[in-house]
Amino acid sequence: MGGLWQMPKPFTTQRLIRFSHCDPAGIVFFVNFFEMISGIVEDWFREAVHQPFQEMHLGRRVGFPIVSTGCEFFRPCHLGDTLVLELAIARLGRASIEFDIRGRVGGDEKFRARHKVAMVSLDTFKSMPIPDDMRARMLAYVGAEGR
Amino acid sequence: MGGLWQMPKPFTTQRLIRFSHCDPAGIVFFVNFFEMISGIVEDWFREAVHQPFQEMHLGRRVGFPIVSTGCEFFRPCHLGDTLVLELAIARLGRASIEFDIRGRVGGDEKFRARHKVAMVSLDTFKSMPIPDDMRARMLAYVGAEGR
Amino acid sequence: MGGLWQMPKPFTTQRLIRFSHCDPAGIVFFVNFFEMISGIVEDWFREAVHQPFQEMHLGRRVGFPIVSTGCEFFRPCHLGDTLVLELAIARLGRASIEFDIRGRVGGDEKFRARHKVAMVSLDTFKSMPIPDDMRARMLAYVGAEGR
Amino acid sequence: MGGLWQMPKPFTTQRLIRFSHCDPAGIVFFVNFFEMISGIVEDWFREAVHQPFQEMHLGRRVGFPIVSTGCEFFRPCHLGDTLVLELAIARLGRASIEFDIRGRVGGDEKFRARHKVAMVSLDTFKSMPIPDDMRARMLAYVGAEGR
Repeated sequence: MGGLWQMPKPFTTQRLIRFSHCDPAGIVFFVNFFEMISGIVEDWFREAVHQPFQEMHLGRRVGFPIVSTGCEFFRPCHLGDTLVLELAIARLGRASIEFDIRGRVGGDEKFRARHKVAMVSLDTFKSMPIPDDMRARMLAYVGAEGR
Repeated sequence: MGGLWQMPKPFTTQRLIRFSHCDPAGIVFFVNFFEMISGIVEDWFREAVHQPFQEMHLGRRVGFPIVSTGCEFFRPCHLGDTLVLELAIARLGRASIEFDIRGRVGGDEKFRARHKVAMVSLDTFKSMPIPDDMRARMLAYVGAEGR
Repeated sequence: MGGLWQMPKPFTTQRLIRFSHCDPAGIVFFVNFFEMISGIVEDWFREAVHQPFQEMHLGRRVGFPIVSTGCEFFRPCHLGDTLVLELAIARLGRASIEFDIRGRVGGDEKFRARHKVAMVSLDTFKSMPIPDDMRARMLAYVGAEGR
Repeated sequence: MGGLWQMPKPFTTQRLIRFSHCDPAGIVFFVNFFEMISGIVEDWFREAVHQPFQEMHLGRRVGFPIVSTGCEFFRPCHLGDTLVLELAIARLGRASIEFDIRGRVGGDEKFRARHKVAMVSLDTFKSMPIPDDMRARMLAYVGAEGR
């Protein structure tokens, strides 16, 4: 990735590109990249913030609906590729998180996304500030300009 | 369809085969046929049984989880095909429905499925007999041997 | 929509929100909106530009891969909603199209997307200018500021 | 699993149940189980038969379209479950393979599927006998009654 990535420590997962991800052109159908973006956010909440969705939804009664998402696609991904997904926080707000999520195969960058979610109460559906215990774990993923 | 179909009156819908349904071989990925099977069952509950899922789930507090499903695939379906879906009831039980669902493009049969659902209370998750008002509307789709 | 929409004539389709579109919160999972965005682009090529994908891919040997896409989500969509999708062209380039795609239920705007595609040869994967016959049909969907 | 499984050595993978797999009832939407069935077959070809799909499709010019599939669903799967998938061969034919695929969470069996594929030439789309080198690797997964 060279100088592309300035974050202290991106959260990283891998996805093997399967037959079911690919379209008649033999490359990943772009919609499936959003499913993978959704997946790495879910994995990060579970592993880095220690908030599995099922516990957060049922226990704390909060959720993180999507506010906006955007993605640039640089090069196609193919069946059999191992896609490395990297997540960092571009901006951590009082009640919202804007993720910077990238996908690459080896050193070849495939896409780069901005993906913003906001915390809401599942009882009132109103915006809620992110609690301090969760925020403390999130800080490790925030770039210098995003705090 | 000629003599293929002995039901009094199958419930019929159409689906245009889109890019997103197709796999790297350029044909419908089999998993998407199950999404279409799910869709025609949902359409039939709404239009033929007068039970849209949202009303049935929230109002009556009942649902129809899948017990089993099976499908034979005869010929591939292609991008741009208009797939005609036909639903009849092979067996209407006290608390269960076994559907006979077929897909064709023109006279060319593509798949044939058996798809069984059972009615449960969404409060207790126990099996419940299908109410008479719903059963009355279902009878029009039951073949001679299935009552 | 009131004054929201300044395009001469958006291309319009409808999608019934099904069970399979919805997530455990009972609302449309955001990834499925991208599948619908992909779907209206495909419908527009077929019906408005007279270029069904299967003919364009096999006959002309050109395709329109996604360059970038972005979407703001305003309000959730629910099972049973009839989502009206509207497509216009925000900018028609020499070899690219930037769509403005919106989803609403009645007068309630649900999402607004920018979705950019670029024409490539399927033989060389190089960018190609949009042919005049296709461009002529596209012009009817371009807003005043986008030509 | 106790005495449920008589195969010499099932091929085993795991899938974490994600938000995107679940429906408004909060359980895995049945269609997604077929995507997982497709996935374990692909993994087995790659890891056990040493035939990644991309090499098999492009190199050998053969593929394994689905002939039929059927699945019984015993109990629902929930967000956060670790689903263990197990694959064995119920019958290995000259040109076809009938898989026995099961899903469980801990000792709790969730589904059991029969999934049949047949080898075809991707040039002629005609049935072809499974080559000896592939068959040799498959035999380790065939139960006593299936050879």
